[in-house]
Amino acid sequence: MTSLIKTTVLGFITFFFITSVHAQSLSEQDRAQIMALKKTALSSNLAYEIDESLTTEVGPRRVGTPGDKLGIDWAVAKMKQLGFDKVWTEDVTHYAWHRGTAEARILAPYPQKMVAIALGGSVGTPKTGLSAEVVEFADFAALKAAAPGSLDGKIAYVSYRMERKINGAGYGPAVRTRGAGPSVAASKGALALIIRSVGTDNNRIGHTGGLHYKDGIAKIPAAALSNPDADLLSNQIRRGKPVKVFLKLTAERRDDTPVITHNVIGEVTGRTHPDEYVVMGAHLDSWDVGTGAVDDGIGVSISLAAAHYIASLPERPKRTIRVILFAAEEVGLVGAEEYVRKHEDDMVNHIIGAEWDFGTGRIYEMTPGVGPSALNAIRELAGLLAPLGVSLSPKNTAKGQSDMSALGNKGMPAINFEPDGMAYFDYHHTENDTLDKVDAEALKQNTAVYVIYSYFAAQSGVDFRK
Amino acid sequence: MTSLIKTTVLGFITFFFITSVHAQSLSEQDRAQIMALKKTALSSNLAYEIDESLTTEVGPRRVGTPGDKLGIDWAVAKMKQLGFDKVWTEDVTHYAWHRGTAEARILAPYPQKMVAIALGGSVGTPKTGLSAEVVEFADFAALKAAAPGSLDGKIAYVSYRMERKINGAGYGPAVRTRGAGPSVAASKGALALIIRSVGTDNNRIGHTGGLHYKDGIAKIPAAALSNPDADLLSNQIRRGKPVKVFLKLTAERRDDTPVITHNVIGEVTGRTHPDEYVVMGAHLDSWDVGTGAVDDGIGVSISLAAAHYIASLPERPKRTIRVILFAAEEVGLVGAEEYVRKHEDDMVNHIIGAEWDFGTGRIYEMTPGVGPSALNAIRELAGLLAPLGVSLSPKNTAKGQSDMSALGNKGMPAINFEPDGMAYFDYHHTENDTLDKVDAEALKQNTAVYVIYSYFAAQSGVDFRK
Repeated sequence: MTSLIKTTVLGFITFFFITSVHAQSLSEQDRAQIMALKKTALSSNLAYEIDESLTTEVGPRRVGTPGDKLGIDWAVAKMKQLGFDKVWTEDVTHYAWHRGTAEARILAPYPQKMVAIALGGSVGTPKTGLSAEVVEFADFAALKAAAPGSLDGKIAYVSYRMERKINGAGYGPAVRTRGAGPSVAASKGALALIIRSVGTDNNRIGHTGGLHYKDGIAKIPAAALSNPDADLLSNQIRRGKPVKVFLKLTAERRDDTPVITHNVIGEVTGRTHPDEYVVMGAHLDSWDVGTGAVDDGIGVSISLAAAHYIASLPERPKRTIRVILFAAEEVGLVGAEEYVRKHEDDMVNHIIGAEWDFGTGRIYEMTPGVGPSALNAIRELAGLLAPLGVSLSPKNTAKGQSDMSALGNKGMPAINFEPDGMAYFDYHHTENDTLDKVDAEALKQNTAVYVIYSYFAAQSGVDFRK
Repeated sequence: MTSLIKTTVLGFITFFFITSVHAQSLSEQDRAQIMALKKTALSSNLAYEIDESLTTEVGPRRVGTPGDKLGIDWAVAKMKQLGFDKVWTEDVTHYAWHRGTAEARILAPYPQKMVAIALGGSVGTPKTGLSAEVVEFADFAALKAAAPGSLDGKIAYVSYRMERKINGAGYGPAVRTRGAGPSVAASKGALALIIRSVGTDNNRIGHTGGLHYKDGIAKIPAAALSNPDADLLSNQIRRGKPVKVFLKLTAERRDDTPVITHNVIGEVTGRTHPDEYVVMGAHLDSWDVGTGAVDDGIGVSISLAAAHYIASLPERPKRTIRVILFAAEEVGLVGAEEYVRKHEDDMVNHIIGAEWDFGTGRIYEMTPGVGPSALNAIRELAGLLAPLGVSLSPKNTAKGQSDMSALGNKGMPAINFEPDGMAYFDYHHTENDTLDKVDAEALKQNTAVYVIYSYFAAQSGVDFRK
């Protein structure tokens, strides 16, 4: 609380300082409009209600599943219901993958069941499963350092423990094994890879997430153990006797079978500059195990709610508000890359973009990635956001988060809004990603930030590239 | 911390007041011995190591399973290894039950999978499962109030939400439905009962636990939904359309097939009064889904560690320390009742008893259940425990916790040690009952309390019945 007050006071000081020395981008009337929008966002449950609707009426939305299709229909209908002026979908193609079931057991020295989950995209084991001795590695570097052939006939096991950090910085070092580990293990001769879950919780629930097989290397099955089961396995290994594990994944990967999904795009059309887009992004797909309430139901909900508040004003802002709900993010930003391909020619009309794909929590910082002349406008925006507890990062390096990075890498200016991510990796990519994890009060702050950002960028006419 | 210091200071005051007006039960030498035992307990990881051994080398120990047998062998060996003078087992009979698998899905209006678990002892559904409309009840009283026949062909669903309380007082009101609900629902015509889990967490993991079918009423299948799934089901029901659920339990209950298990009993034999028993109890069986690290691996571990510290002294205390690791507690104190039947004639030699069966946390209170003359000795003991943060309850009503209540009800004096139970029902009876949930530091305090209690009662010669 104390630090919030400090931040707020500092914010006001910054704000008054800025406004005294620079021309403002917004008129007093626009500024009053923003205050009214903020008040609406802070007093409404709309974003939570949208997420409740998505998770109750649709549920899991993994690319290529019936839930994915249902989610797309839901999003189109919801955008229309919320007063968007235009709503359409754009095709995205991916390949088929079936999760099946995962079974893991320690066979020796002390037989016990373990909770495991297939990594996304993993091939299955032989139909009857496989049994092999386990070799433990402390981290990805240790696995990479294993001698070729040293894992022949073995199961590689990486027990690296992800660290909990407010900005999610523990994810990078941990996720390396999930993505690249299967091919590295295969290159040493391993029959399969199992990893400690990339997650910060201690639940008997595994964390899934995409893997990336390297061309020319055998595709081996890969699964994540729940963290308590990883503890158990390491405790048995520590006793010094050979540890043998049974693993059975009935997953099926069908690289040659395309599945079609869709980006869903909705616009609140600009009054004077309809072809200039202020973008809010989120991904509509989710993993198949939870209901995707957090990842990325929250991004979907706050974007839709913020756009709805603007669509409900008597007058449209100058520029268009474009909400892009990306398909197939979880399998590698596939929808975002398709969007960029399709919109290459009008990428220059994407004035600025922000994506929310980092769970539930209050936004405490914003990092811009804009041209040097636009920094004054960013400071003006920061002044408006400071009373909400959002501080301005001294960096100007943002390329857009998650899907939005595909657009950022094509030159679109971006703002990254950073929420408190301490709890995010407790639920990330698990069955536990459900509505009860959503912080309804934080959602109001998130939506207030989004509506201020988008109205500011749409109404001010600032060129964020300059 | 502040309250701990206060408690400590008050403890000292109480202690000096008591010792100044009453004869002490212990000599100065005994008192010094207790201080040394406390120091040992507070500086050793033994209890944690015992629990690590039990959960790593044995794991789940549901009555009648191979793990139950392994656990009994482990306990006998561990007691011998820890220096107990006598170790033996006593037969306990129960009936066979097979958990099988649980599958639950909402079929309409919005199809979604749910996470469910069979209640312990439940019969299975028909082999192909059953599908029926769900009728929600807010609590057990509402279910009881349903008109006979009103649930014909329906699935009854009780959505009562357990409250989190430090002393576990939220359990009673919640567990009623789990125990008696199936027969009540059946008496109204229901095909099956599903309940919100009796637990305080929000994980996609169901809480199992025993049910009790009433004679003369049809046995219907009964399962617990994980709490997030109960939210989901209630959210769909709230929309006002008929909600249809599919439930399939492959559980099998075989009332006519006996299974034999064993209470495991170990003694550190008293030097002068070997036939007077100071009892520490815990249950060795667990549910089959977690490793029983908390329930009741902690009780097992602190009892064994405390007895070991006493067995390691140069001289045995006057009375015998008897550790009873009960069988078949989870299915209704079956091992404890068998113990009482078998030991009815020498129940009078059970001087006093305490059981630990309430999770992981520091002990903050002790409640005696002793004769009025013994209260002075209890206050003396409380003075010894106060520096550990344990306060003395003004009540003198304890009958022994869990299994120990079977002995308490036969006249054995008891002490209930109350640990902080805020988190206990997050893990209770779930897959999540694993070693990582054990608070290793709290375990040292718990063991210190147990060793002080048992040495005090064994060495002081107090008659706690008077």
